[in-house]
Amino acid sequence: MEFIKELVFDARGLIPVVIQDASNGEILMLAWMNEQSLQKTLKTGKTHFWSRSRKKLWLKGEHSGHFQTVKEIYLDCDGDTLLIKVEQKVGACHTGYRSCFYRKVEEGGKLVIRGEKVFEPNQVY
Amino acid sequence: MEFIKELVFDARGLIPVVIQDASNGEILMLAWMNEQSLQKTLKTGKTHFWSRSRKKLWLKGEHSGHFQTVKEIYLDCDGDTLLIKVEQKVGACHTGYRSCFYRKVEEGGKLVIRGEKVFEPNQVY
Repeated sequence: MEFIKELVFDARGLIPVVIQDASNGEILMLAWMNEQSLQKTLKTGKTHFWSRSRKKLWLKGEHSGHFQTVKEIYLDCDGDTLLIKVEQKVGACHTGYRSCFYRKVEEGGKLVIRGEKVFEPNQVY
Repeated sequence: MEFIKELVFDARGLIPVVIQDASNGEILMLAWMNEQSLQKTLKTGKTHFWSRSRKKLWLKGEHSGHFQTVKEIYLDCDGDTLLIKVEQKVGACHTGYRSCFYRKVEEGGKLVIRGEKVFEPNQVY
């Protein structure tokens, strides 16, 4: 894969990946890939990430069934960030929201919930 | 600002920030903020970042005039990523494209330019 030569992984061997809903442009999450998880993503067409907390490769949806099917991949000018447009099954966030960015900063710095709840986590995990 | 307590800065004191065009949902760039650049962003309404390569605070548009006016701020579930929707003047990328993600990965991993060129860098910098 020619484009992988252009990628700049950080000192930990990771690259941040912005995940965007291909259908409506909503930002669903930011996650991290190492080269192995990128290769698995390319091979299977389903996003795989590197979990920094669990220190393991992770297929998005492996527990929930809420897989992300890759539609388009973009690379930024520096080659140190990927943007992947996906078809998201049900919801991206483990809290039950469609997007991980379900909290908005309002006047005075107060956080309010603006996201769409699409599943009940305790019925899924 | 109440929401700042919820933020998780990394070991370097940084947090990644996804910048999205408020008008059409296009992802413009990913950049990094420390607490000082976030405070400046909140105070002025214009995005300020931390440059990891130059190790300095940076007002987006300080050389080009291509400022980003903050419209909305969102926080992800873990509090370790921000999403800021902006009004982007001219273009976000120093290469002259509207978005830093102007290169798309096509069949076989080949990179093709898909972004919109909106200015000539050598006439701006």
